[in-house]
Parts: sequence; structure tokens; C-alpha cells
Amino acid sequence: MKRTSMNISKNVIRRLPRYLHKLDDLANNGEKRISSGELGRQMGLTPSQIRQDFSCFGEFGQQGYGYSIAPLREQMGQILGLDRSYSVIQVGVGNIGHALIENFNSIIEGYRLLGAFDERPELIGSKIGDTPVYSSKNLTDFIQKNRVDIAILAVPRDVAQKLTNNMISAGIRAIWNFTNVELDTGDSGVLVENIHFSDSFLTLTYYLAEEDDVKK
Amino acid sequence: MKRTSMNISKNVIRRLPRYLHKLDDLANNGEKRISSGELGRQMGLTPSQIRQDFSCFGEFGQQGYGYSIAPLREQMGQILGLDRSYSVIQVGVGNIGHALIENFNSIIEGYRLLGAFDERPELIGSKIGDTPVYSSKNLTDFIQKNRVDIAILAVPRDVAQKLTNNMISAGIRAIWNFTNVELDTGDSGVLVENIHFSDSFLTLTYYLAEEDDVKK
Repeated sequence: MKRTSMNISKNVIRRLPRYLHKLDDLANNGEKRISSGELGRQMGLTPSQIRQDFSCFGEFGQQGYGYSIAPLREQMGQILGLDRSYSVIQVGVGNIGHALIENFNSIIEGYRLLGAFDERPELIGSKIGDTPVYSSKNLTDFIQKNRVDIAILAVPRDVAQKLTNNMISAGIRAIWNFTNVELDTGDSGVLVENIHFSDSFLTLTYYLAEEDDVKK
Repeated sequence: MKRTSMNISKNVIRRLPRYLHKLDDLANNGEKRISSGELGRQMGLTPSQIRQDFSCFGEFGQQGYGYSIAPLREQMGQILGLDRSYSVIQVGVGNIGHALIENFNSIIEGYRLLGAFDERPELIGSKIGDTPVYSSKNLTDFIQKNRVDIAILAVPRDVAQKLTNNMISAGIRAIWNFTNVELDTGDSGVLVENIHFSDSFLTLTYYLAEEDDVKK
């Protein structure tokens, strides 16, 4: 399975990690193969949707036989870049940053943090698990020298954009953004994927308020 | 501004928190009013999209004058349920849960955590900031007695669904899900909003792999 087209819709791409996790679960339960019908039932998708999603990446599965789980899982991992060993750093070691460092291996199997950066002197030189904490002053140098691909950004709002600009100049390729700031990456082509806690929570309270209004 | 229709698209709802944050920023900078053109420019949206979004909630703004920021912000907050004071608890006080408790007030202004729940004896009876930690054994009782609206779920994968079932029986209305499990809420009507760290990160590595394949 490989990318046969570079114009795959965002909705398909958002489903790929779900397929990966589902295939992991099935493999862990000792399953060997699964039909698109059964996979759809377990994931709340239609079989034709699943076949359509997979067809973006070439032929897969066999009429009347279904999908072999182990090879499909491996190829899904490749599609998602799990075999590329992209280098990752943590920028900002507050509560959230600290928790991300401690959970990084369980969030993303096979990935390792090269280092973490903070400006508080009491943190610099320490280690969180295996991850060394460096001074923010060395951030751009480190990105350049180590050709860092991905920065996890979890810093206070007021420094988020400035650090983003600096990292872009240093050649970062992608930012996993935990600040509640909409980062401006200009025409750099740098990828940004947001975890906006506040926006996510407000979606819940919106729907609760809607429910309450309906009941009135 | 109020909900004039209960069939507002998810994409519109996802933009509402962004409007709220942008209006906060503008108010903090001392701005009094803004045109849909300028608001669109700052948010990467077209003016007609903004007018369309707002029109879901009734008439707002004035031709040639634009939007008054303070009242628009207040009404956006009401739409998002910020004035409803929904009650919230934290379930699971691992690294992520702990960080969420410590950051909850900065994530969601005006909301307070009623309590946190964990099964580790050394945590039970302690406080994290102002938030007391109770035993998981008391979770369902607490939800019933305090009519808890929202549970923030940050527990190990293998207990996520069981806790969800228990909380649904106890009358929880919404779950903010930080586990990487797709929760099954059956026909309970309980709302689930997911923060799937792993899925989000894999989206980034997908796009990086795509970039690399294009360069080849």
C-alpha cells in the first residue's frame, strides 16, 4: 500500500490513525483477518467507506476473503510515517509539557524525544525520564544541528509566536501546537497540528447548552 | 444572539471557540469594533463565511459599521455555554490528569473542578491546588449526588470503557475523553469529545512522509 495520489482528503487522513489502532487491537486479540463489513461494524463506518479509504493507497484485501490484519497494520504504519524515525523535541516544560514528555513513548510507539527546552534555570541540565532539558537559548542551534523535524510546543501564549518564528528560521518542519494560539507560519510551508484544549472543551459545553435549550 | 436552529453544522460549531478567543484578544488590545472583512483577514476566513456563521445565531453587526466586540464576545460566550456553570470532575490523576487539573482554570475560565478521582491510595484524600482527590469507588455516587455534567477521562486504556459505562449509569451527560479509546456510549445520548493525542501526532507524521515522498 502506498500513496497513489497526493490529494487525499483530510477526512480520510484523519481516519488512518483510527484504522491503525483498531488493527493493533485486533492483532493483540489474536485475530488474523477481517472483512470490511466487520471492520466497519466495529468502527461505525460503512464497508464501502473503508474500501474507498484503503483504495487511496492501492489495492488491498481480497473479494470474499477480507483483509489480512498483520500486513495491513504494517502498511498502515508506513503510510502514517511510523517507519521514518522523525526527530522530535519538546519546547516548554510546564505541567502539560512535563506530562507529554513522561507519556511520549506511550502516545507514540517507536518515537523518541531528542530533548526538551525551557528557560527556567532550575530545570536546565535536569532529565525527565531519559529526556534531557536544555536552555531555550540553544533551541534554534539544536534544531539546525540535529535537523529536528517536529517540535511539540507547550509554552505560555505570549511567547508562542516568537518561538515559532525562531524555529521556522532554524528549519523546523512541523509543530504540534498545544498552546491556544493560532500560529502564523507565513509562507514557510511548516505544518501545524493543533491540540486546542479550550476549543475542544467549549464544543462540549455548546452541545450541553443546546440540549438544555431543547428541553425548555 | 441565540440558537435559531438546532441543526448547525459541526464545522460552524468548531469555529465558535476560535471566534471567542479572537474577540478576547481584540478586547484585550482595546479594540471596540471590527468589520467582517478585517475579522476574516485575521482569522483566515472569508467575510461571507463569518457573516454566514453568525447568521446561525440571529442578526448581528450592522452594514458599514461592523461588529461591536464586547457584546459579540459576551453573546458568543453564552452560545458556547460559558454562563451555564456546568459541573466538571477529573477521572484519573496520572501525568496527563494531574496536568489538566493544574491547568484547568487557564484552559477554561470560569469553570471549577468539583473533584478528582483515582484508585491509588497515596493520592486519595490529597489536594491538587484546590481540587480534592477522592477514591474511584465513590465516583458513581458522587456523580449522582452532585449531578455532575462533564467528566474529564484520563485513565489507562483497559479501564476506560468500564468507567464510561459506570458513569453513564450514574447520569453523566458528557465525557471529555483523553484516553486513546473509542468509547462506546450505546444509545445513552452521552456526548463524547475526544482528545486523541496519538491520532493528532500521526497526522503530522503522515504529512511529513508525504512531503518526503514528493521530493523523491
